[in-house]
Amino acid sequence: MRNVTRTGSTWKYNLPPAVVSAGTVVGKKEGNGPLGKYFDIVHEDNWLGGGSFEKAEQKILEEACNIAVRKAGLKREDINYHFSGDLLNQTTSSGFTAKNLGIPYLGIFGACSTSMEGLALASYLTATGGAEYAMASTCSHTNTSEKQFRYPNEYGAQKNDTSQCTVIGGGAVIVGNGQIQSQSKINVTAATIGRVLDFGVADPFNMGAAMAPAAADTLINHFKDLNIDTDYYDLVLTGDLGKVGTEIFKELLSQKGINFGEGILNDGGVMIYPDDGRFFAGGSGCGCMAVTAYGYVLNQMANGRLKRVLCIATGALLSQLSVQQKQTIPCIAHGVALELSEV
Amino acid sequence: MRNVTRTGSTWKYNLPPAVVSAGTVVGKKEGNGPLGKYFDIVHEDNWLGGGSFEKAEQKILEEACNIAVRKAGLKREDINYHFSGDLLNQTTSSGFTAKNLGIPYLGIFGACSTSMEGLALASYLTATGGAEYAMASTCSHTNTSEKQFRYPNEYGAQKNDTSQCTVIGGGAVIVGNGQIQSQSKINVTAATIGRVLDFGVADPFNMGAAMAPAAADTLINHFKDLNIDTDYYDLVLTGDLGKVGTEIFKELLSQKGINFGEGILNDGGVMIYPDDGRFFAGGSGCGCMAVTAYGYVLNQMANGRLKRVLCIATGALLSQLSVQQKQTIPCIAHGVALELSEV
Repeated sequence: MRNVTRTGSTWKYNLPPAVVSAGTVVGKKEGNGPLGKYFDIVHEDNWLGGGSFEKAEQKILEEACNIAVRKAGLKREDINYHFSGDLLNQTTSSGFTAKNLGIPYLGIFGACSTSMEGLALASYLTATGGAEYAMASTCSHTNTSEKQFRYPNEYGAQKNDTSQCTVIGGGAVIVGNGQIQSQSKINVTAATIGRVLDFGVADPFNMGAAMAPAAADTLINHFKDLNIDTDYYDLVLTGDLGKVGTEIFKELLSQKGINFGEGILNDGGVMIYPDDGRFFAGGSGCGCMAVTAYGYVLNQMANGRLKRVLCIATGALLSQLSVQQKQTIPCIAHGVALELSEV
Repeated sequence: MRNVTRTGSTWKYNLPPAVVSAGTVVGKKEGNGPLGKYFDIVHEDNWLGGGSFEKAEQKILEEACNIAVRKAGLKREDINYHFSGDLLNQTTSSGFTAKNLGIPYLGIFGACSTSMEGLALASYLTATGGAEYAMASTCSHTNTSEKQFRYPNEYGAQKNDTSQCTVIGGGAVIVGNGQIQSQSKINVTAATIGRVLDFGVADPFNMGAAMAPAAADTLINHFKDLNIDTDYYDLVLTGDLGKVGTEIFKELLSQKGINFGEGILNDGGVMIYPDDGRFFAGGSGCGCMAVTAYGYVLNQMANGRLKRVLCIATGALLSQLSVQQKQTIPCIAHGVALELSEV
């Protein structure tokens, strides 16, 4: 039997790799939010005592990776490959973190889809014998991202209700070969790689609307490729459509006759902040899905409260320059299935 | 027998995937250079008739991909996955090209190591059953890169002798499952993933020196992991160390007692332009290694002039901001082995 079966753009692992450990590090607002208790470290200071917000972002990513390695009871040199990417130009947080970790490094970029792109590739390598252990990580920081893509937060520019707030957060996850005995009973069972779609949204203050069609496309392909029904998963977690994008996402699915039971669909961008108006349409940024999935979801699975979860991370592949040149926003989404093993 | 054997950070494929086809597109200076005859399209106009240099760069990448698909006798929908990345912030050339191609897309970033990172991952997927056909592509454009990382060419800023010139070029390669009968007898037999190294070079006008240690590290690991000797390959092609970096690279190897025969070591950045002083230390940019490997090397292999080639693509993981913040330049290199099959 082959270790992987591909149907469409979906890999199904016949010896599913185990989720060995994870690390999550967030900022103050995320720590004070509804998911606060699921994170390993909460930083009160956006600067982390460093000389720049970029250095703070890098430190968050590095902490998340080191926590994951430590929780796994491994040393860095036991990790064969590390996939990482982030929102900064030339993914510098990831590149500089990779330098400090010393693990063979595969840089990736999928904007906020990076978390699941990394986990898809890391799980693929471990499922097929190319790695014993592989790590996937990503991060974001509100002060670096808002400055780079829109306006520095310090300017106090007015946001509108479709805006999302970039999460301060870094998440890392380590997956191990299926034959390795692990404390964890959580496996990565399948992954669906998305196509880039563009429905003509050009407003960088409304990314949820831009990304919703890509999320719907990947979800539909995932269910079709695996020939499963909408009652298969306990939770389908998108990230980060926010409140506006989630409504469009549900509407798009509904138009296709796809309806999930109450509470099955949720979104990292909706979950991470309190719904009190201060965060507009919710959270965004590579770190949002990473900490929601590797903090909240893995915790709920470890406790048996969730048994089967599909994480669909969505990315808006815009740049400051593409916006200035009046281009619309191409978007992508990658899905990864996490399941408790039967034992 | 497993489809892949991992030793250290090197994958050796037991059913090596075939190089099915490639596409290469360059600008005028590259077309007039020593390798000019190996490229599919040479553009006389840096703008390609488009509204911006960024749009021109994207068009070059898209052309290279479409040529590769056409030469393979395939349709786009036959390609299961597409790995691509480039130097622009948020790898926009790749993201927008992926939108137009419609192939499931995995965005990668390794600066000028992107070509071989993509080929390593594409060949891994096809070798292990995750894809029937996979494509890897990348590109660069002098007017977009110089503007983003240093000064716009139009400013006429003086360059020094250690500077490299960003290549206008896009390259794409398609690999197919080992069991597929192919016109090509060229196989991808192994790939070595690099670590990020930083020897303290902080000068963005001397990238060759910054990248040489990473190239040496990956080369040493590749030979050690596969237990092969320096007479194994007909050509070890780095890209893009340029003249300055190549000298340092050879010196670093020599210090370790590693010496190659005359003419075995060469560099895409050295080969692509005439050595007449106009190009300083030579070429650079993601497109440089891509068009040298997928144009020149594959041609020489198809003609039997080269039988075994190791391509080591090197990347400097700096950003404009990391330079402004006085950070040194972390570098990486990935190696991919191409070999003629015995038949």
